[in-house]
Amino acid sequence: MANNLQRGFEQAEFEHRTSRAQQMMRELELDAMLFTTEPNVRYFTGFHTQFWQSPTRPWFVIVPAQGKPIAIVPEIGASGMASTWIDNIITWPSPRPEDDGISLVASTLNSLPCRFGRVGATLGIESHLRMPINNYLQLTTLMKKQFVDVSLAVHELRQIKSQAEIAKTREICRITNLAFDKIPQNARIGMSEREICKQLRIDLLQAGADECPYIIAGSGPDGYDSIIMGPTDRIIDSGDVLIIDTGAVRDGYFSDFDRNWAFGHASEQTKAAYRACYEATTQGFAAARPGATTSDIFNAMWQVLEANGALGNDVGRLGHGLGIELTERPSNTATDNTMLKPGMVMTLEPGMVYAPGKSMVHEENIVITENGAEWLSRRAEPELIIIE
Amino acid sequence: MANNLQRGFEQAEFEHRTSRAQQMMRELELDAMLFTTEPNVRYFTGFHTQFWQSPTRPWFVIVPAQGKPIAIVPEIGASGMASTWIDNIITWPSPRPEDDGISLVASTLNSLPCRFGRVGATLGIESHLRMPINNYLQLTTLMKKQFVDVSLAVHELRQIKSQAEIAKTREICRITNLAFDKIPQNARIGMSEREICKQLRIDLLQAGADECPYIIAGSGPDGYDSIIMGPTDRIIDSGDVLIIDTGAVRDGYFSDFDRNWAFGHASEQTKAAYRACYEATTQGFAAARPGATTSDIFNAMWQVLEANGALGNDVGRLGHGLGIELTERPSNTATDNTMLKPGMVMTLEPGMVYAPGKSMVHEENIVITENGAEWLSRRAEPELIIIE
Repeated sequence: MANNLQRGFEQAEFEHRTSRAQQMMRELELDAMLFTTEPNVRYFTGFHTQFWQSPTRPWFVIVPAQGKPIAIVPEIGASGMASTWIDNIITWPSPRPEDDGISLVASTLNSLPCRFGRVGATLGIESHLRMPINNYLQLTTLMKKQFVDVSLAVHELRQIKSQAEIAKTREICRITNLAFDKIPQNARIGMSEREICKQLRIDLLQAGADECPYIIAGSGPDGYDSIIMGPTDRIIDSGDVLIIDTGAVRDGYFSDFDRNWAFGHASEQTKAAYRACYEATTQGFAAARPGATTSDIFNAMWQVLEANGALGNDVGRLGHGLGIELTERPSNTATDNTMLKPGMVMTLEPGMVYAPGKSMVHEENIVITENGAEWLSRRAEPELIIIE
Repeated sequence: MANNLQRGFEQAEFEHRTSRAQQMMRELELDAMLFTTEPNVRYFTGFHTQFWQSPTRPWFVIVPAQGKPIAIVPEIGASGMASTWIDNIITWPSPRPEDDGISLVASTLNSLPCRFGRVGATLGIESHLRMPINNYLQLTTLMKKQFVDVSLAVHELRQIKSQAEIAKTREICRITNLAFDKIPQNARIGMSEREICKQLRIDLLQAGADECPYIIAGSGPDGYDSIIMGPTDRIIDSGDVLIIDTGAVRDGYFSDFDRNWAFGHASEQTKAAYRACYEATTQGFAAARPGATTSDIFNAMWQVLEANGALGNDVGRLGHGLGIELTERPSNTATDNTMLKPGMVMTLEPGMVYAPGKSMVHEENIVITENGAEWLSRRAEPELIIIE
């Protein structure tokens, strides 16, 4: 049983990730892969820092066809990278606008054995390069190999979580549940969304979260119209419904689920919308098993929502992958059709517009297992909680 | 006097930003500019959400040569964008892998008057595009205009802050000082870096911060060797020096300064390194005035550090711009040579390696004024505080 509380990972975890990547690289005929973003750099090296908040300097990790990853990083990160399992660490004094690591990346890639002449980079779906695009274009001229897109393959690699990764998500979900449990004691009519969320943020930290990069709130009479904004200074009134959606982090792994509460009283329509989302979650969970697809999950949930009067859904999907990032591939949509496999950590996020300008959205976190799925979040109550 | 506590900005602020941008665009012969990242989208629209934590969907804002910015955003963001000053909001149901906004961006850019045939985008220095690079390359083929790099010009636009922006930075600096002040009461030998930082994080929230995306710690006997990692579970012992560097946020504006403490006792060498950094800050502040350059600030500080035995500096610079992001252009380096102008918010960050593996780094926040500079952070104590 993986330990939920141990920080970081054993070296074997990174060896396994690298080995899986190198297997994939052989299939895709790649000599190396180049990474520039926080999640991918951390995934292969274990390099874990909040310094990505600073957009000034680029960071590079190369996964070669054989052997350990190679880090090409600003001098300021040398000692931090040296504390990981990586031992080939190349540095330069960044920021250096005239050559911010580019010649080093080119010479390192050029020095690797050239079997296929192809280097993978995340150029495509749900990816970006965290470096100036002009530097990337310059790099393509300095390289003796060609870049090819590996976005989808890297998403697929990362979306199968190890037991150690799942344990980390389970732990932050446990913490997030504990903090959400305090809302009915702490939140009152007359408080602002912001006050309620601030207390939740403190409760999350005290329950064991490292940070809470995502705490949004929506509220309004009988429902809300956005689930990605706020919290604002809007004062909660009797008859309001409040949603708080939270992405909290412990040791670099996210929870991502929400809870809804009514204040004073709630209309039958609102209570019915809550029940519909709860039932949709039940059906989504039942559909979530190896061999089924993300579209099966979507259809199972959307059927319930439509039968209960859904006017639409402006989220664009009913859940998604979860892990190092708040949202990862795949998406639960009608057309995504990603095959579910054991180890995939997902959110079930049924939501609907049930009256003009009024939405109800539920969300839970699950992991696909050999036999079906397992809850990582403790489920919401089956009936809308009304805070007096 | 701008109000430190009011959330957001008056519409006039965004009109002024857009007008300055359009003036610049005329000089650079641009028909429009395209933005994809959180800071630039927020700068021109006021669209303020934590949803950027989700990397799934791209977001686009176009600033045309005349008139208000145009938002091309996922449907999930429509109601949030509608609450800003923007009224031309184009949406699509994202995620939609086969066309995630690209055809809309192309048709909108193509529909704008074509005077110069050039569209600015942040393709260069200290910039990236938050969209798949393959989608960007596809966009260039769908467009009747040509993309040109405007990274530096946009950095220059943003680095002159309005009084309303400066007030926001002043307020988060005040809050950060209050929280740092509690460390000598809260931190003790035997606590871990992580415990001390967790309490600081809660104190920052209680003092008025919205969030604290950056709280790092370094500690060790007589000094530390990294200022971008941690906090870790390392237990503070007698003779240790602890640095905590903090980027806290209120209403979307960052503070970024650090503090150092010794525990039990400190060597004369450590105390001397502390005094040298303090004196370097004094000299950096004196050099920070309109007409001088970032390199003048650097030289004023580095002279003090060298005279006090600096073995080197692996940060790569002695301070930087500050605002919507934790670090913005320009950098205080020997070769940066950016002319200082009133309204530039900067950090002074003198640091040196004063013994092998031991660094001392100070940091304060200032704003360049008509006559010189003004402190935004309340300065550190002139002598190293020793916590018993």
